Amino acid sequence: MTLATLGPAGTFSHELAARLYTDEIELLPTIRSIIKHVATGAAKGLVPIENSEAGGVGETLQGLMEFDVSITGEAYIPIRHHLAARTDPSRLSVIYAHPQTHEQCSILLDKLGIEVVHTSSNAASAVAMQRDERAGAVVSEMAAAIYNLPIILRDLQNNRSNITRFVEISAAPLDSAGATKCSLLVDPETDRVGLLADLLGVFARRGINLTRIESRPSRRGIGSYIFFIDLAISEGLQEAKEELKGMASVRELGCYARMEVPGL
Amino acid sequence: MTLATLGPAGTFSHELAARLYTDEIELLPTIRSIIKHVATGAAKGLVPIENSEAGGVGETLQGLMEFDVSITGEAYIPIRHHLAARTDPSRLSVIYAHPQTHEQCSILLDKLGIEVVHTSSNAASAVAMQRDERAGAVVSEMAAAIYNLPIILRDLQNNRSNITRFVEISAAPLDSAGATKCSLLVDPETDRVGLLADLLGVFARRGINLTRIESRPSRRGIGSYIFFIDLAISEGLQEAKEELKGMASVRELGCYARMEVPGL
Repeated sequence: MTLATLGPAGTFSHELAARLYTDEIELLPTIRSIIKHVATGAAKGLVPIENSEAGGVGETLQGLMEFDVSITGEAYIPIRHHLAARTDPSRLSVIYAHPQTHEQCSILLDKLGIEVVHTSSNAASAVAMQRDERAGAVVSEMAAAIYNLPIILRDLQNNRSNITRFVEISAAPLDSAGATKCSLLVDPETDRVGLLADLLGVFARRGINLTRIESRPSRRGIGSYIFFIDLAISEGLQEAKEELKGMASVRELGCYARMEVPGL
Repeated sequence: MTLATLGPAGTFSHELAARLYTDEIELLPTIRSIIKHVATGAAKGLVPIENSEAGGVGETLQGLMEFDVSITGEAYIPIRHHLAARTDPSRLSVIYAHPQTHEQCSILLDKLGIEVVHTSSNAASAVAMQRDERAGAVVSEMAAAIYNLPIILRDLQNNRSNITRFVEISAAPLDSAGATKCSLLVDPETDRVGLLADLLGVFARRGINLTRIESRPSRRGIGSYIFFIDLAISEGLQEAKEELKGMASVRELGCYARMEVPGL
């Protein structure tokens, strides 16, 4: 089955997809278009859901709310940014970088003191660099390889443990054999003081570990939230889910295991 | 005092700053550089912290963790994207858009079926459009005004109630007279089952309303989180904060009021 992920060629999504799958890879321009495509049953998808620097990926959480897809796996990839150029750092007059890449490498780029020009993607930085002998580009390993650019400075990122978590999505859920984690979308529908404490108490009382909770705007107005909750699979989970369903609207997004990434 | 916010000219940050302040506005290229600059005491800052579609703004939350600044106000601005062009929609051969703008307008842009080319900012879309008679650009009201572009289709955004919350940051906290809300940064330092339910119980038992909770990676490894908590100021808050400090490391980010935005 085709695997849909975020383009252009050389994104971290593309790199991870190439490492994980032997399927044909289809690069789409927006996360929403990937999730919509997966919901039709025509493809599996691979989308970023959480980064250790930037937090939750809004477009992915929004797409999971909007379309009927299931999470069927997760994988982690370290985010490493490198400076590519055909000259010495001292001879550079401009560095091309995507604005978010610039944010993630701001400490070192500030120190270099060379003008940074923003581009639309790391791939676009690579292309822009090739037009000018004295230009550099902040790119991933894969983008450097695709565009055949020499890397002159490695690991520009502010945080050496910058990691992105991706999820595999499919039109139908997995059976839960082998799964270690489940994701729920919890919509309290109304708000009251102490509601979130009560919702979480359902799991706390049974000793079930929440590995993540992320609040998202419900779109019923500012200040009204829904919650993405990830839980470690353990005894009492089925009972806890039933109790929760008595307190809030609950959608099961899927139970799944971590995929090992070859070569990382 | 100078007000630092995110450039280039025509960003929503720039538009909001121009509406709110009579101070000189300084446009900086990254959120991190704004917060760092504010921490020196040389300027106030205005940065986006939360969007109703995309969720928390990672760079801002990260900057608040890293630098010693206080939140001294908040303001809300509706995010509206418009299609600017010098020709009819039917004659367009390309539309320039920032990738996040593309995500936020994906439903209508998909329907138009015209090739979308990504740029580094809404301002860059406006500039790119001017080089080609048959090109359009997705821009804000202010970017259209700055670059003198005719708007041919209004309100492309998927969600009509797309709103961004901004915070004013300063080197020193306000005294809390007139404040309606406080923000805390809570770091549990260790993790255990039920910890978050216990932390939230401190407020629930006293009837204190949490207006927002956002988990962020603690950077002590994946799966370890800190929490940004916003609370409505009410009786018992001081006592609740003291109890919380016995359970976790708590930093007070500031108490503040909402700023009314002229002309919105």
